[in-house]
Amino acid sequence: MTLYSYWRSSAAYRVRIALNLKGLEYAIEPVHLVRDGGQQHAPAYRGINPQGVVPTLLHGERVFRQSLAIIEYIDETWPAPPLLPARSRDRARVRALAQLVASDMHPLNNLRVLQFLEGEWSVPQAERELWIRHWLLEGFAALEALLADHPSTGRFCDGEAPGLADCCLVPQVYNARRFGVDLAPFPNVARIEANCMALPEFAAARPEAQPDAPAA
Amino acid sequence: MTLYSYWRSSAAYRVRIALNLKGLEYAIEPVHLVRDGGQQHAPAYRGINPQGVVPTLLHGERVFRQSLAIIEYIDETWPAPPLLPARSRDRARVRALAQLVASDMHPLNNLRVLQFLEGEWSVPQAERELWIRHWLLEGFAALEALLADHPSTGRFCDGEAPGLADCCLVPQVYNARRFGVDLAPFPNVARIEANCMALPEFAAARPEAQPDAPAA
Repeated sequence: MTLYSYWRSSAAYRVRIALNLKGLEYAIEPVHLVRDGGQQHAPAYRGINPQGVVPTLLHGERVFRQSLAIIEYIDETWPAPPLLPARSRDRARVRALAQLVASDMHPLNNLRVLQFLEGEWSVPQAERELWIRHWLLEGFAALEALLADHPSTGRFCDGEAPGLADCCLVPQVYNARRFGVDLAPFPNVARIEANCMALPEFAAARPEAQPDAPAA
Repeated sequence: MTLYSYWRSSAAYRVRIALNLKGLEYAIEPVHLVRDGGQQHAPAYRGINPQGVVPTLLHGERVFRQSLAIIEYIDETWPAPPLLPARSRDRARVRALAQLVASDMHPLNNLRVLQFLEGEWSVPQAERELWIRHWLLEGFAALEALLADHPSTGRFCDGEAPGLADCCLVPQVYNARRFGVDLAPFPNVARIEANCMALPEFAAARPEAQPDAPAA
């Protein structure tokens, strides 16, 4: 398998965690989102991902796009250890936590949006960072409420083993740190992230551990 | 079952379609996203949906959030007719189409984002509409490429029966019309939407057919 990835892409980070949790071998094909005007816009890459975004997973001759769809595919294809709980209502809860991050936090703060704000509207950096923090804080507040208020929450978002929601939570916490968001008001989010990062599967997926990360 | 819904919410529209495709009975509990400063922010509603967004589905005593998670729950709980294909790789394709809409188009153009642009940055209406059209056009271009270039595309996004991806495509086309986006460059998108809207399950879910829609 080959994962088209960018070291700091939070959507690619999710998939790297999932592949690692399954113990799967994969090659990283770096797509630099800034260099060369954005390698994701190159015609060859657009051929496999018409949106021009990462990640894309190649498995044999098949092409998979969109991080959560890729993770569900991985989970269905290699069922152990499971990334979703067995009961339908619990699966719905985990998917909702994942989608809160993937649909309501990350899309507002990703590179193409920040490039629009800067390039089209000349929004100054301080205002762009205010924008980023606004959506992060709103999302984490909801995530914290959903985690604090549910008996399924354990060492991880769902019980005692990491899964789909943790694959989404961890990269978003990475973004929060990058943009100076204080996690103190979100103790369950912070606690679960720490439990995740203690696992080698998460540590190996982190941006700084990627082959395309810049030298420290 | 009770669906907390707003007539023009595209995420609520998705779930209404899915419930109708399954032939399920449900009550609509309207949440007016503008009136009273936004009824989704009322403490009683925040109690079941800490994010303060629609939709929320109540099934018995259980609460379900996030439109795609809700639709997957509906599909697992009432399997016929299926909203996802049987083969894992086909499911991944349908989920990716759905997530392209739900994660990369809709979140940029929903009410809370437009309110931020207007309220915090005083972005004028013409610029806000430019923003909306930008993300719609970018998303539809990718959606069209993925539909045009795949043998699974049929009368609907996946073959000859409507499913999860169609539940997402149709409300986004509604938004496109609302904001004056020409669909001529996206013939597969337009064709599939027309095929969907010919079905009573889609027609009954449309915003203007809702109990909380304003009188024409």
